[in-house]
Amino acid sequence: MASKGEKTRADIVACAKKLFYEQGYERTSFSDIVAAAGLFRGNIYHYFKTKDDILKAVIDQHLDDFRALLTGWQALHADPKARLVQFVKMVVSRERELIQYGCPIGSLNTELGKDRPDLQQSARALFDMFRDWLAAQLEALGYAGEAESLALHLLGRAQGVAVIAHVYHDAKLLHAETERLEAWIGQL
Amino acid sequence: MASKGEKTRADIVACAKKLFYEQGYERTSFSDIVAAAGLFRGNIYHYFKTKDDILKAVIDQHLDDFRALLTGWQALHADPKARLVQFVKMVVSRERELIQYGCPIGSLNTELGKDRPDLQQSARALFDMFRDWLAAQLEALGYAGEAESLALHLLGRAQGVAVIAHVYHDAKLLHAETERLEAWIGQL
Repeated sequence: MASKGEKTRADIVACAKKLFYEQGYERTSFSDIVAAAGLFRGNIYHYFKTKDDILKAVIDQHLDDFRALLTGWQALHADPKARLVQFVKMVVSRERELIQYGCPIGSLNTELGKDRPDLQQSARALFDMFRDWLAAQLEALGYAGEAESLALHLLGRAQGVAVIAHVYHDAKLLHAETERLEAWIGQL
Repeated sequence: MASKGEKTRADIVACAKKLFYEQGYERTSFSDIVAAAGLFRGNIYHYFKTKDDILKAVIDQHLDDFRALLTGWQALHADPKARLVQFVKMVVSRERELIQYGCPIGSLNTELGKDRPDLQQSARALFDMFRDWLAAQLEALGYAGEAESLALHLLGRAQGVAVIAHVYHDAKLLHAETERLEAWIGQL
């Protein structure tokens, strides 16, 4: 059972994760997180000294969440192609958030990649996780020599879908593009 | 000839355009712009009251720049397919900035689309401009019924290329992906 301290820490991370996603990292202040977690400012310092520290914990939480998702997909499908399709279905299933806020990992890296190289290096691990998992499926499909390149292609295509659906806040656009992506997987 | 006032205004917009691109909109303060333009704070208020006002002028500047670019491509190539390839070549020619800062119009919309709907509506005009121009080329190629959908697909693909190249700060990745995009245009 989690201790009270562990629960408070998890609450802070959950609130920050939501705010960073819905508003952006720079736009979210330390005070916003304190307020959202319903804490006194002094209490949060027991867990995190800076907003950058909170971000690192948020990235770890994203990594845990996505690792669990990938493990679930592997249990669900033995066929590597079905697993790749599952990746696209994730995009579709998150339609509402993607349209409103963009891709959580893409928009975070886009923001940090401009002039926070230290933090972006941490955030990039989220892309690495998907790239490596997608590449493993592509290798299993017989694309040994170009698995990483194709994995990055698929990841980039999914990013493009998220950007364009977010720019136009348009679910129909998201569906049209994810269908194209599924067709691409079908041809593999 | 531009008046001194017009020149000062253009300087402010140029400095803000660079800062918004290289750091992000939220991360750039009004004071950063004042300092970069080498002005006293009081002087800038003569031209712009708020950072949001400056952003609108920056978007107008982007629109003017890209309009000039599209006009140039039309003069350069009569063939609609060559014009589409030129769009991809623009991505390649901006390799250095794209890798370092991402796509200027994509990253701006990604940031504003989260919780600045008023400003993002202005910024979206940059996507509209490319979408309409690409759709016109696709119509000329005989894709009348699906020109807009294909234009958004191409725009999304280019966004995906920019995101992935920026996340990994990798020129080779950018080239691999733009080659795929040129191949896609070749098949049209």
